[in-house]
Amino acid sequence: MIPLDDRGLLLGDGLFETLLAVDGVLAAPGPHLDRMGAGCATLGLPPLDRDEAVRLMGEALGRLDAPRAAVRLTLTAGSGGRGLDRPDAPQARMFATAAPAPRPREPADLISSTVRRNDLSPASRLKTLSYLDNVLARAEAQGSGVDEALMLNTRGDVACAAAANVFWLWGGRLYTPSLACGALAGTMRARVIEAAKAMGIEVVETRSGVAELARAEAAFLTNSLIGVRAVRSLDGFAWEPSPLVERLAAAVRG
Amino acid sequence: MIPLDDRGLLLGDGLFETLLAVDGVLAAPGPHLDRMGAGCATLGLPPLDRDEAVRLMGEALGRLDAPRAAVRLTLTAGSGGRGLDRPDAPQARMFATAAPAPRPREPADLISSTVRRNDLSPASRLKTLSYLDNVLARAEAQGSGVDEALMLNTRGDVACAAAANVFWLWGGRLYTPSLACGALAGTMRARVIEAAKAMGIEVVETRSGVAELARAEAAFLTNSLIGVRAVRSLDGFAWEPSPLVERLAAAVRG
Repeated sequence: MIPLDDRGLLLGDGLFETLLAVDGVLAAPGPHLDRMGAGCATLGLPPLDRDEAVRLMGEALGRLDAPRAAVRLTLTAGSGGRGLDRPDAPQARMFATAAPAPRPREPADLISSTVRRNDLSPASRLKTLSYLDNVLARAEAQGSGVDEALMLNTRGDVACAAAANVFWLWGGRLYTPSLACGALAGTMRARVIEAAKAMGIEVVETRSGVAELARAEAAFLTNSLIGVRAVRSLDGFAWEPSPLVERLAAAVRG
Repeated sequence: MIPLDDRGLLLGDGLFETLLAVDGVLAAPGPHLDRMGAGCATLGLPPLDRDEAVRLMGEALGRLDAPRAAVRLTLTAGSGGRGLDRPDAPQARMFATAAPAPRPREPADLISSTVRRNDLSPASRLKTLSYLDNVLARAEAQGSGVDEALMLNTRGDVACAAAANVFWLWGGRLYTPSLACGALAGTMRARVIEAAKAMGIEVVETRSGVAELARAEAAFLTNSLIGVRAVRSLDGFAWEPSPLVERLAAAVRG
């Protein structure tokens, strides 16, 4: 339980990470802890206690019996301050929960969301507790009977999906929105870029409108839980399955 | 205390209102409840239980002994769902807290924030629990030793301050950013517009860059707690006190 004066609860003032655990073991926690630690610095919060974070996630995993689990680590700016103002010495509050995370079996159907990603806020480079824009984008997708929502940034460039990074293939190259577009520096995004380069594929971090994605030969989503998930359609326009997307999915599943 | 699976805590999925209470009595709760009720509809949450909201705020006030209090009403999207996805039938969770709210005695010094207001999200028209952009803007102001931060929207138009609406006077007219700029429909904003019109002052809801505010004859902030608070400086450029701002402040204090 969390007290009513917690700034994460009242103002979305905090950070989170979602990690995959397989057979009770966290898969690659390092990059997630690095990102949360960097987020603490950006938000002006005390340095992340990595040992405590790992301990809390282990405890949450210990309470769950699932071969594949999503572990959520939450860090709030703690209690205190007055209105928007932080207290002089904020004390972070941290907790972790775990839930079964079956791998999605189908490729994803997407719509373009009307909600834009605010690339003009430092929060767009962080995984923060102020996630309502993403919730609203996802709710649009749910309302349209599809899986995920594509989000453009404030300039109209492709940024990300509500809970995933976006990639597409065109002319033998792999494209993904640059971090400057408001894309989160996803840990799986980094792994896919690395895997693609190892396979001899040129990777372009790009600033592109939705038309460039729409004409791509294939598209896919990435995050820690789904790995690589093919996109089957965007706004009703369908793609055929792509062997190259399957190869990339297998490379990061390994 | 709030459970760890609350969507307000985990995702900033919810709404809040801050009301003034004088001598234990809520000042004009109606417009605040209207706005929260409209927000529930926009977010796809069940209709607001207004009686319960008033009861919770009364309880919070009863625990406080202060002539002037800030009552904060918080509504979260409740527990449940998986990741970003809302549960099929979300059950809102509501609570209220109260704290002393002395009236600021000095006019406000402002800086222009580097954090932009996301007018391209429906959340910009709501007072949501995803308030980190505003927290970061305020932290910039605090870091510069001033009171408040001016926020531009994604097009570079003046939108609001971190926790207030913005007005300025020029050539006998009163200007304030239109709601389309990402300004919140402040209850005190509406009262000031009404008071100005009653005084024969033309009010222009505008889309303006910061240069128009900078050359104004006077500027002020509004919210429920401060009423009208004169702006003394923006980015170090100072204004003289304005008798007209004082008249407007007196009109809404009455």
